[in-house]
Amino acid sequence: MQTFDIYCAGQFISTQNPLEVTNPFNNQAFAQTYLAGETELEQAIQAAQDCMPALRSMPSHKKSKALFEIAQGLQDQLETLATLLAHESGKPMIYARGEIMRSIQTFKIAGEECKRLPGEIIQLDWTPAGEGRKGYVQYFPIGLVAGISPFNFPMNLAVHKIAPALAAGCPIVLKPSTNTPLSTLALARIIDNTDFPKGSLSILPMNRKNGNQLVTDSRFKLLSFTGSPAVGWRMKEQSGPKKVVLELGGNAGLLVSDDCNLDLAVEKAVIGGFAYSGQVCIHAQRIYVHRKIFETFSQKFIQKVAQLTFGNPLESTTQISAMIDEDNAIRIENWVNEAVESGAKILCGGKRFGTYYEPTVLVETKPQMKVCALEVFGPVVSLEPFDDFKEAIEGINQSEFGLQAGVFTNRISEMDYAFENLEVGGVILNDAPIFRVDHMPYGGIKNSGLGREGVKYAMMDMLEPRILVK
Amino acid sequence: MQTFDIYCAGQFISTQNPLEVTNPFNNQAFAQTYLAGETELEQAIQAAQDCMPALRSMPSHKKSKALFEIAQGLQDQLETLATLLAHESGKPMIYARGEIMRSIQTFKIAGEECKRLPGEIIQLDWTPAGEGRKGYVQYFPIGLVAGISPFNFPMNLAVHKIAPALAAGCPIVLKPSTNTPLSTLALARIIDNTDFPKGSLSILPMNRKNGNQLVTDSRFKLLSFTGSPAVGWRMKEQSGPKKVVLELGGNAGLLVSDDCNLDLAVEKAVIGGFAYSGQVCIHAQRIYVHRKIFETFSQKFIQKVAQLTFGNPLESTTQISAMIDEDNAIRIENWVNEAVESGAKILCGGKRFGTYYEPTVLVETKPQMKVCALEVFGPVVSLEPFDDFKEAIEGINQSEFGLQAGVFTNRISEMDYAFENLEVGGVILNDAPIFRVDHMPYGGIKNSGLGREGVKYAMMDMLEPRILVK
Amino acid sequence: MQTFDIYCAGQFISTQNPLEVTNPFNNQAFAQTYLAGETELEQAIQAAQDCMPALRSMPSHKKSKALFEIAQGLQDQLETLATLLAHESGKPMIYARGEIMRSIQTFKIAGEECKRLPGEIIQLDWTPAGEGRKGYVQYFPIGLVAGISPFNFPMNLAVHKIAPALAAGCPIVLKPSTNTPLSTLALARIIDNTDFPKGSLSILPMNRKNGNQLVTDSRFKLLSFTGSPAVGWRMKEQSGPKKVVLELGGNAGLLVSDDCNLDLAVEKAVIGGFAYSGQVCIHAQRIYVHRKIFETFSQKFIQKVAQLTFGNPLESTTQISAMIDEDNAIRIENWVNEAVESGAKILCGGKRFGTYYEPTVLVETKPQMKVCALEVFGPVVSLEPFDDFKEAIEGINQSEFGLQAGVFTNRISEMDYAFENLEVGGVILNDAPIFRVDHMPYGGIKNSGLGREGVKYAMMDMLEPRILVK
Amino acid sequence: MQTFDIYCAGQFISTQNPLEVTNPFNNQAFAQTYLAGETELEQAIQAAQDCMPALRSMPSHKKSKALFEIAQGLQDQLETLATLLAHESGKPMIYARGEIMRSIQTFKIAGEECKRLPGEIIQLDWTPAGEGRKGYVQYFPIGLVAGISPFNFPMNLAVHKIAPALAAGCPIVLKPSTNTPLSTLALARIIDNTDFPKGSLSILPMNRKNGNQLVTDSRFKLLSFTGSPAVGWRMKEQSGPKKVVLELGGNAGLLVSDDCNLDLAVEKAVIGGFAYSGQVCIHAQRIYVHRKIFETFSQKFIQKVAQLTFGNPLESTTQISAMIDEDNAIRIENWVNEAVESGAKILCGGKRFGTYYEPTVLVETKPQMKVCALEVFGPVVSLEPFDDFKEAIEGINQSEFGLQAGVFTNRISEMDYAFENLEVGGVILNDAPIFRVDHMPYGGIKNSGLGREGVKYAMMDMLEPRILVK
Repeated sequence: MQTFDIYCAGQFISTQNPLEVTNPFNNQAFAQTYLAGETELEQAIQAAQDCMPALRSMPSHKKSKALFEIAQGLQDQLETLATLLAHESGKPMIYARGEIMRSIQTFKIAGEECKRLPGEIIQLDWTPAGEGRKGYVQYFPIGLVAGISPFNFPMNLAVHKIAPALAAGCPIVLKPSTNTPLSTLALARIIDNTDFPKGSLSILPMNRKNGNQLVTDSRFKLLSFTGSPAVGWRMKEQSGPKKVVLELGGNAGLLVSDDCNLDLAVEKAVIGGFAYSGQVCIHAQRIYVHRKIFETFSQKFIQKVAQLTFGNPLESTTQISAMIDEDNAIRIENWVNEAVESGAKILCGGKRFGTYYEPTVLVETKPQMKVCALEVFGPVVSLEPFDDFKEAIEGINQSEFGLQAGVFTNRISEMDYAFENLEVGGVILNDAPIFRVDHMPYGGIKNSGLGREGVKYAMMDMLEPRILVK
Repeated sequence: MQTFDIYCAGQFISTQNPLEVTNPFNNQAFAQTYLAGETELEQAIQAAQDCMPALRSMPSHKKSKALFEIAQGLQDQLETLATLLAHESGKPMIYARGEIMRSIQTFKIAGEECKRLPGEIIQLDWTPAGEGRKGYVQYFPIGLVAGISPFNFPMNLAVHKIAPALAAGCPIVLKPSTNTPLSTLALARIIDNTDFPKGSLSILPMNRKNGNQLVTDSRFKLLSFTGSPAVGWRMKEQSGPKKVVLELGGNAGLLVSDDCNLDLAVEKAVIGGFAYSGQVCIHAQRIYVHRKIFETFSQKFIQKVAQLTFGNPLESTTQISAMIDEDNAIRIENWVNEAVESGAKILCGGKRFGTYYEPTVLVETKPQMKVCALEVFGPVVSLEPFDDFKEAIEGINQSEFGLQAGVFTNRISEMDYAFENLEVGGVILNDAPIFRVDHMPYGGIKNSGLGREGVKYAMMDMLEPRILVK
Repeated sequence: MQTFDIYCAGQFISTQNPLEVTNPFNNQAFAQTYLAGETELEQAIQAAQDCMPALRSMPSHKKSKALFEIAQGLQDQLETLATLLAHESGKPMIYARGEIMRSIQTFKIAGEECKRLPGEIIQLDWTPAGEGRKGYVQYFPIGLVAGISPFNFPMNLAVHKIAPALAAGCPIVLKPSTNTPLSTLALARIIDNTDFPKGSLSILPMNRKNGNQLVTDSRFKLLSFTGSPAVGWRMKEQSGPKKVVLELGGNAGLLVSDDCNLDLAVEKAVIGGFAYSGQVCIHAQRIYVHRKIFETFSQKFIQKVAQLTFGNPLESTTQISAMIDEDNAIRIENWVNEAVESGAKILCGGKRFGTYYEPTVLVETKPQMKVCALEVFGPVVSLEPFDDFKEAIEGINQSEFGLQAGVFTNRISEMDYAFENLEVGGVILNDAPIFRVDHMPYGGIKNSGLGREGVKYAMMDMLEPRILVK
Repeated sequence: MQTFDIYCAGQFISTQNPLEVTNPFNNQAFAQTYLAGETELEQAIQAAQDCMPALRSMPSHKKSKALFEIAQGLQDQLETLATLLAHESGKPMIYARGEIMRSIQTFKIAGEECKRLPGEIIQLDWTPAGEGRKGYVQYFPIGLVAGISPFNFPMNLAVHKIAPALAAGCPIVLKPSTNTPLSTLALARIIDNTDFPKGSLSILPMNRKNGNQLVTDSRFKLLSFTGSPAVGWRMKEQSGPKKVVLELGGNAGLLVSDDCNLDLAVEKAVIGGFAYSGQVCIHAQRIYVHRKIFETFSQKFIQKVAQLTFGNPLESTTQISAMIDEDNAIRIENWVNEAVESGAKILCGGKRFGTYYEPTVLVETKPQMKVCALEVFGPVVSLEPFDDFKEAIEGINQSEFGLQAGVFTNRISEMDYAFENLEVGGVILNDAPIFRVDHMPYGGIKNSGLGREGVKYAMMDMLEPRILVK
């Protein structure tokens, strides 16, 4: 069984607390790493503080070069890393490979953005008090960053914290999900080979208790968390004076107008609904289709969903595989059952086999059912017809979440209405809400969180403005 | 007969060469001013150079205050100025008043933008050569500006040169149209009352020969000309080392898709086609209507055009009045006759009465007819049906001009196609091409000119960047 | 005794709980207003929610017009308002007038910035996944804003929350200090006369218990607090999912290099140290002077401090007056005494007379003394010599606060070192740290808070980005 | 003798007109290429027009990839290319290598900037006329670009036209200097291997007559010329409706204040004055030194200049070599003689040996001498003492040129005064005026030209804004 050292204060080390990592597809432990404890965390923090002067004074060409080297390192190990990621997360290889490629892109973006910190010169003579003076606003690294990343994109959601932190000149201590710590530890090997000062990055799998010090320790100036709302908001409460960026969940809506490309809508809805078994914050959970085309849409949709190939994530033909663990599969099973008992109908799927839950399409759901109201984070989609575009928008807004939404339409009026009125961070036109490229501002409102990621946007939270009045 | 002194080097003066100003509606001289000669121009240039240090070091709060005072001064004299403008230009009061109000707005924008000169701090350490260095880019007044403005918006097109020049800290010598010099001279009275240093502005009506020194004299660092293409391009040739901004003509297209609000399209097309007798650079000269709605559109359109009220520009009910002079009316008459002889049909209008030419709608024109190919600058509109949206776009592009175009549609695909492919400076969605607000970037490509106006954009041409490498 | 109704949900009302307002100079109640309770707060919140659609869809020209009308209204009542402010706060008229003028400016800035919400178009085709797509990022009002403002700038620090909120299209409920609620209530009269929808603003004096609902009620999407660190950080803890902007305290440093304009440094240091008895977040509390010029500086400084005219704040000659209440004067007395007992020496001042504490200059202080380590918020300044510029910077940084700092020098190397290394939000070159103009980014790091104010910067926190992927 | 085909319309071809390329160091022809004629130019223009749709619709990730491939291609052939460049231009290898490295960097910058075209969303509702509307400003390729580049940086000054053109999506026809066409033809081989559509680039050595069609042919929408003022301004005259960017000459000043790092100033002045024998637009031609340090400076300076190693450009130890041709060496000789006859003294150098002119330092020059007034473009530097900083600034400004200037000082007041008052495009603090990194805005005012290069800045001139009013 392969063993992965953790990355602490610039060194790869082991601890007294082994952590077995399990393949969700066959429930077998296939590798081992370690849990960091208070000691390791303290070392990581100390090293982060110690390297801060060196990191912040690193010229941008050196930061850029190192960030591009990391991208190249990932490229060189693409297949190995994708396989590792598929093993630890049960994510089918087609998606695992895509995730590594996105991480490559995320590091490249950081390699470019580190040279483009904003700096502004402001006229201050708007009143006599400022005559003869200008303001020079520049941005400085905020200090230590704490990152906590989830299991569902084990690599790229960690990279969305690591890459901007290094680009901004902030040391970062990252706690990956204990389900899926291996790909980030493999990444640490690559980063360790660059010229970033030792201590700039530590990757520490931790139990929740120790991990909580990332939240409470005031030596960290920013906490960047991606995970569930309940945990996220409690972290904000406990975070003391530090800044907090929260990327929480969603139950994204997808609206299909009668004036749209129907086949495209179906195709994108299938991917949006079932990629990685719906374990994606912006998976299309609630689909609203105009009544005129509802029948056609749902038939075509069901047909495509039924064709999704289940299998071992390591096989290239596999489109859908096991969920991250059986607990989650059981939770989904219960939620669907609850919906059916309250009147929902199953158009396809609806059965569980161990950690695998079938891709499932429901109709006649009600907004208060768990499968609609909460974040399902599984392969379950509800389909509902609508008559009036504005009401459908209202339906999507009747959610505690507000991350992204998709809208299929060719009408300018509908596009504008949707954009003006959808209470979300992003409206995706003529694609599923799952759309994301790594340099766009990404994040939600309402219960979906606080702040935006997307390298440049994440960096802005890791930088403090300072004005020179001269 | 009222006499207006010209404004030279901070003084209101007369010269040996009186200039009578005629009311185009009744062809009667109603006021007198003067032509400046070489001596006056030399004084104006000297004064402009002398005041440059004072003007460029004026704090932004003082510039802003003065610019807002000018706006207030115009507001206080709104009716008087509108009446004067209507007299000199034959522009109906409803439009004359609107023009003064736009000039008020243009000065207010300048009063805000003068406090917002861009200033940028750039990291220079993208290579080892720049390590430890940053670049501070600031903007400085380019120097003396020469402005030449036309008759059709005697106030606001002059203001689009004066206001940005003062806001940018550049002295300006403006030559108004000799047809319509009075409203700018009235404006000079207002500006003279502010704290701008004497010499910052001169308003000099001149004959073409003397006026040409504005083009050739190298003490001017920028020439900003609004007028005809032939004159504009020759000026560029003669301009020596100075920068040149040219706002030339257009023969704007308007495209009406079958998926649009037809009544709105008709209403806007009438204004776009016939406001101030089409003597507007962005008047809707060529209207393309989808064949499905062509009949309906043309009937409604003709009906509305026929209802336009002709009369004395000074009466509030007047919607259309005389052209600027009889020469132009005769030119229009000839062009329409030529078109008819080559196969075009007149749906309404087509007759001339002295300086008045009826609002005229043609069908079955051909692209090479003067009424299509050239800038008609008169109350003549061609209507053509189209079957294919892309061909209609192609039709609009088959012009030597490229200023603005209007598109009525509710289809996203058509909007996007139009915006990507129309070879113009501005695409107006669901309005006529005549749409302009004074802070938007405005200007054309191809034979329509070089550069953009819109206060902030005009200012950028009046400022030179300078970098401090530190 | 004059009575001021509170401003709740668009109406001026009284409540069952009168609140007397005292003149700190003579300790006499001179006016009365009311405390709002739960009921009033609920009404204010409801009205704020109800008016949100109207407020957010208000075109920018209407918002701008209304904001400029408020500025004009303040201008019209300048003397009355300054007098009222002097009464409630004990602030000398010279400063009270200045504060109203700054509030006028703050509203004007808001009237300009409301037209300049940022909007960005991003190429999304950085990878094949984004081919053919662009991102359109626009900004939308975040929702209800809760504002809590302090006694020391009763008008302008409230205005720095109200003006950006209205400009951004967010309704705001503001709790002024119960010591000084009157000037903001007078402001409410002016705002009530504009076209902002009723409910856009409520001004509710409240006791701490009721006021705390502004912190905890999740219908507010942003809390903007100006006040003490202890209170501020606890608010962050209790704030739930809302965003929090904290403008907390400071103990600003001022560094005087040997290569500087000494007389200017002395003059600015006196104002920076003793304006409004030092009850200013960015008052110059700790002055470091190069040993070469220490003697000269301290003699000139003491001389000027001794000349400060004490008196009734309502008299125009008064330069220094009573503190906000006797508790604070006693606190200062105790801190100075503590310092003296630990070795500090008093160069001038050091005595208390009721609510008045003399302008006091200390030498030979130690960093851990309260007068150095904490925010003194009173007329007490420490003077220390230094030998090495970098050590002096280090001295200034040895503080839990980081708001602004002043540096007097003519050396580029010292300016750059100070700017790169001072851990503050703003470095003021050749002026005291008290320098602030209302459109510059203002705010601190470390214990001095989170986020920036300055209209445009405050607005950015009141707006959420939303991307349209098209 | 090696033969280089020219690059025309995507093909490497020969013509009937061979062009021998001579090594300036030994005056021997070492390679041959061809002159393009009217036919080839027409083919290039046609191909450029034909490929425009493909080039403009190339997604940014493909453009970026191709531009980075070019950078890599240059990197792979660094030594070969540097040697070729040294051969054709006589530039010492240390500088030739540096130039190739800068070209690598220029292409990388273009590979990043092509993804960052600016796009802006403007509120249009500043008046009722714009209610409900926004403006979407995007940038489109201007069309065909004509580039003309000089001998002194045969690669990188061509790259500063080619790289931005390709990044902006504009096909470009480039005429290199007929003295030094080979390195750009070698570059064409690399670019030909990328996915840019054939026709995007042609490299055509031409005689002046044929080359002039680049200026006059209206199918080109932008002319970008680097060369001499006389030629440049005449081109502007003949350029018709196209935009013109001119990077012309300079006679840069360097000012050395008494409060500066003297040894650094000396070291940088030597490089700034004599790198590539002063055949650099921003070579330090006129050095002003404060009288207090004049003696020390001039002694140290002369000493270092005397140590410059003359030799074959291909040898790594060579610091200075032949000029581009004997005509220029003779011109320098004449100018220096003229200066000496009018009273100037030679501190070192002053002799010519064929194409080699010794590094020469003059004192007691007068502003009207050719070596001061004109662009010397050779290894000649004048040294003058000054007493008053402002007068020295005035001295630098007494020039028809305004490209860059260097200032050595540690005084903030002098830095600010210099930046505010030097009439140049760039002020270099504590380095020679020769400083340039490839992403900074670069270009001059007065007789030094029009417009700025620096990839992003060059791109802006190659893009037209278009607004969608929606």
